[in-house]
Amino acid sequence: MKELLEQINQPNDIKKISEKDYADLAKEIRALLVRSVSKNGGHLASNLGAVELTMALHLVMDFPEDKLIFDVGHQSYTHKILTGRRKEFDTLRRYEGLSGFPKRRESDCDAFDTGHSSTSISAAAGLATARDLEGEHYRVAAVIGDGALSGGMAYEALNHIGGSRSNMLIVLNDNRMSIAENIGGMAAYLGKLRTNAKYVGFKDDLEQTLRKTRLGTKLVYKLKRSKDSIKHLIVPGMFFEDMGITYIGPIDGHNIALMTRVFRTALAANKPVLVHVVTEKGHGYEFAKKDPSAFHGVEPFHIKTGKVLEPSPKKNYTSVFSEAVCELAEHNKKIAAITAAMPQGTGLSEFEKKYPERFFDVGIAEEHAVTFAAGLAAGGYQPIVAVYSTFLQRAYDQIVHDVCIGGLPVIFAVDRAGIVGNDGETHQGILDISYLAHIPGMTVAAPRDGAELKAMLGFLTELKKPAAIRYPRGAACDITECPLTPIVYGKAEVLYEADEIAILAVGSMVETALKVREILLAGSYRVMVVNMRFISPLDTELLDNVAKRSRMIVTMEENIHAGGFGEKVAAYFAERGKNVRLKNIALPNHYIEHGDTQILRDKYGLTAEKAAEAIRLAYRG
Amino acid sequence: MKELLEQINQPNDIKKISEKDYADLAKEIRALLVRSVSKNGGHLASNLGAVELTMALHLVMDFPEDKLIFDVGHQSYTHKILTGRRKEFDTLRRYEGLSGFPKRRESDCDAFDTGHSSTSISAAAGLATARDLEGEHYRVAAVIGDGALSGGMAYEALNHIGGSRSNMLIVLNDNRMSIAENIGGMAAYLGKLRTNAKYVGFKDDLEQTLRKTRLGTKLVYKLKRSKDSIKHLIVPGMFFEDMGITYIGPIDGHNIALMTRVFRTALAANKPVLVHVVTEKGHGYEFAKKDPSAFHGVEPFHIKTGKVLEPSPKKNYTSVFSEAVCELAEHNKKIAAITAAMPQGTGLSEFEKKYPERFFDVGIAEEHAVTFAAGLAAGGYQPIVAVYSTFLQRAYDQIVHDVCIGGLPVIFAVDRAGIVGNDGETHQGILDISYLAHIPGMTVAAPRDGAELKAMLGFLTELKKPAAIRYPRGAACDITECPLTPIVYGKAEVLYEADEIAILAVGSMVETALKVREILLAGSYRVMVVNMRFISPLDTELLDNVAKRSRMIVTMEENIHAGGFGEKVAAYFAERGKNVRLKNIALPNHYIEHGDTQILRDKYGLTAEKAAEAIRLAYRG
Repeated sequence: MKELLEQINQPNDIKKISEKDYADLAKEIRALLVRSVSKNGGHLASNLGAVELTMALHLVMDFPEDKLIFDVGHQSYTHKILTGRRKEFDTLRRYEGLSGFPKRRESDCDAFDTGHSSTSISAAAGLATARDLEGEHYRVAAVIGDGALSGGMAYEALNHIGGSRSNMLIVLNDNRMSIAENIGGMAAYLGKLRTNAKYVGFKDDLEQTLRKTRLGTKLVYKLKRSKDSIKHLIVPGMFFEDMGITYIGPIDGHNIALMTRVFRTALAANKPVLVHVVTEKGHGYEFAKKDPSAFHGVEPFHIKTGKVLEPSPKKNYTSVFSEAVCELAEHNKKIAAITAAMPQGTGLSEFEKKYPERFFDVGIAEEHAVTFAAGLAAGGYQPIVAVYSTFLQRAYDQIVHDVCIGGLPVIFAVDRAGIVGNDGETHQGILDISYLAHIPGMTVAAPRDGAELKAMLGFLTELKKPAAIRYPRGAACDITECPLTPIVYGKAEVLYEADEIAILAVGSMVETALKVREILLAGSYRVMVVNMRFISPLDTELLDNVAKRSRMIVTMEENIHAGGFGEKVAAYFAERGKNVRLKNIALPNHYIEHGDTQILRDKYGLTAEKAAEAIRLAYRG
Repeated sequence: MKELLEQINQPNDIKKISEKDYADLAKEIRALLVRSVSKNGGHLASNLGAVELTMALHLVMDFPEDKLIFDVGHQSYTHKILTGRRKEFDTLRRYEGLSGFPKRRESDCDAFDTGHSSTSISAAAGLATARDLEGEHYRVAAVIGDGALSGGMAYEALNHIGGSRSNMLIVLNDNRMSIAENIGGMAAYLGKLRTNAKYVGFKDDLEQTLRKTRLGTKLVYKLKRSKDSIKHLIVPGMFFEDMGITYIGPIDGHNIALMTRVFRTALAANKPVLVHVVTEKGHGYEFAKKDPSAFHGVEPFHIKTGKVLEPSPKKNYTSVFSEAVCELAEHNKKIAAITAAMPQGTGLSEFEKKYPERFFDVGIAEEHAVTFAAGLAAGGYQPIVAVYSTFLQRAYDQIVHDVCIGGLPVIFAVDRAGIVGNDGETHQGILDISYLAHIPGMTVAAPRDGAELKAMLGFLTELKKPAAIRYPRGAACDITECPLTPIVYGKAEVLYEADEIAILAVGSMVETALKVREILLAGSYRVMVVNMRFISPLDTELLDNVAKRSRMIVTMEENIHAGGFGEKVAAYFAERGKNVRLKNIALPNHYIEHGDTQILRDKYGLTAEKAAEAIRLAYRG
């Protein structure tokens, strides 16, 4: 039998499919999603939940004229399939293949690039405003999950558009989860909205009773006309109505006919309308439905069993951190751990189990996470904020203003620092040295391997200063050839002494530098290798010594060049008039596309072979 | 007659004042506030509004045991007066005097340093959590304005503590203004709460009608017990109740007896309680009451007339920007201007009047402001976000993720870049080069004077790339000795050629560099002066030329050294093996205290005299 999907080759082709076939088309899309993600890895559960929702939007919108923005964007796979990218769909998240997120460069049907949470309403508000200024009439819609609603930006946007006369559709895709369980007041509120059936019946009772008297009838009339908070009696969703946003819902997010009807109405209004749609994460694939967290972002897996093909290495940096923070917390009762909606991703699940009273998941809310931690520190605690490098970007001001100006001892465990691979541009952790190391009062450290991550974390809990420790995604290396020496504040660790080429390596690059040394030794170069340990403060004593005895100094880091470690070292020498031959090995000053980590490291010269070659070339001059 | 204030010498002394004297004490405090601010400048209107509110808090709390956090912190003057700082109050905001904001270093009665908006609930939540973990019982309260409530962080914090069993008092100080009029759905909602008197009457009607029948009586009972949204009928403030925060109010924020009663109750609850207090900005000083915006942050003024003693210079950078953006917008219909609650401070008031449909005040919401601008840009517009350097820190991720990755042409007009003076640490604009210039895809420019600000702004609107232009607070200089040459992308402007000492100056430092040249000429040095114009991209061609012919290169910038322009220049030379003698003149790598701008520039070596001396010393070696 010919697949319905074969008719979907261009944007808007879905409109040719007959209504009776929608359910089958949804099935085929799900099969394609499962097949493709089982091969390449990716975000599965959220995409499975959003199939009908996306189909309904495509039935009422025209692409590329209309503008559809997916918050975070990892749930945009069906949108990609429906906008002429079906045939390339198997290249998803692979190097030079389709991105796992919306990209304006990839398709004119992707209205706005997303990747981080809670930005969609702001961007949609901008697009809707531009449309109105221009006198255009295209439709603008944002799809935002209930998890992303805990991000303050989403609220800022709702606050701004509240009461506006500009139409936009906000689809609140409520699957009762972000990556983990949702957190906080808003989640509880949405739960109340979902279960308001009893309340609706009660409302009818009330109306009937009132209608029995004349004054009562008047009151019912007044109630229904009322513009103030009494409307709460009549419509749910007053949280949004209070903000000046018309609320419709909750409705079934797997009922295409219902959604198309409601979306059409909402898109015809002369104001922003929020449609609350309830979906099931993992819908249609049993394993994902049962364990949506595991299938949120998943590695390649076996479709029949739901088992991941290559279980992630036992010892990755996240699991080392997980162990370390639990061990430290056992002895140090002042340690508290904070995550912004990622207990599993950041390795805090175990801590949560062991020390629930000292564990805090604040929702997708990095800004609050950091200042809340600062408050804990002001109250005498030793907070550790575990967060991905790319997401910590959101709290730059809170780090400066709430932590570092006051010198409060908050520790940032910065996971996924460096190239993260298939998630691409919006998720690479390639800026943290640049945005952290210049902050006055901030200590920035990077461990050479798993053992040092553990030791450094312990060290930092004794430091009583603002500090960040950055470590990469993936397997934790274990540098056995050089036993770990005790950590001294601001001091580097010399792994191999030599007087010709000195490699100053940061974090993940230490292991690479050791391999570079092996390669260069084969060419009879004498190579010193230093594990810098601290990027800020710089070990200037070491720099001075190395400058005296080396013929060339090489810096290696997994961060962009601009504002990075190498630039700091170079500036240090130049400003002191030390004429040193330097070779800076870092990522280039642009965003790094998605693809396999090894491919990208090789492309950008961070493998041992490429680095050795670059050093040889530079040395020969 | 002896002043009541003379009895207020230590924390908690207010408790010795008899209740009948509260009104007089409030008057005395207001007189002190007006007297002191009229001399030193500062935040007046908000402090006048918060006198009784602060007194009430001091009557129910004990200092320093209890923890009181002022959001933004500029309304903490009465708190300073009541906690042993009355006698030093005349030194407020002066160099080495009291800070205009809470500072833990200044007093143990200041529980948390603030300065930027919307952080207080997060910090208070952290403190309250630390208290509970510790088994302590001190009280924690946050005072947050209605304006600060539009900041997303405040919502993130409310969301997190919603439903918590941990007590904290949140005083919503509702004066219906941030600096300018408040914006958006939340402001409208608070307005509804304030005027719900009619609604209360209506509620009584409803109840009486219902009670006439048995079913109706049952319904009333049910209504009152109901835990779901039907409670909206019974209590106002359901927005907060929906988030899981108990709401009380609105109450009169100038009635001390009422507030102390309510605060006591709220502080005794086993959950977070928000008390909505309505105050009048400028209360008790006629001129401030009439024009609270003008008396928000005010320069020294004449008490009798309310007139500022030294009107700010006609041509300051803000007014030049104001003119320039209006002129550009007249011809370029795609230009839109965005502010986060500071139309006057950023110079957009005129734009608002002339082009209301292209003007957007999004409230105190820098993150949303930037991504909203990105949306406008994606919709074909040329947004200009006018914002202070220190506040743009809040949108670092939005700049990276929503503007620069997509290469959207958003222009950032970065006002107050450099030392701002009396507001101190939290407000100095000394990090923007460090946090902007490393961002891939971002152009960073700095004009030498008012005329170049105008020209550069026009240039950037033609550039169609993400770009920031930074300029300082205060009088716009006018460099007449060197006529302005046409701007070329990424190219510096050579003002004076010479072959001995080359000064590469950024923005505000160009004028200083010219003075340095005069001084050094007198010593027979040959001095080249370059207006860099662009910090990113660097004019490497110029750097190469200068390196060839100069005996020393000096960089000058009003930014910290780390991650700054000088570091980039030094690294550029060092990485290319150019052995150049360098002198980097920049701010030191720490936060800069409050005080007169000239005192601080002198202290940190940024005056012409100090710079010339430093250069001479470095040159002589």
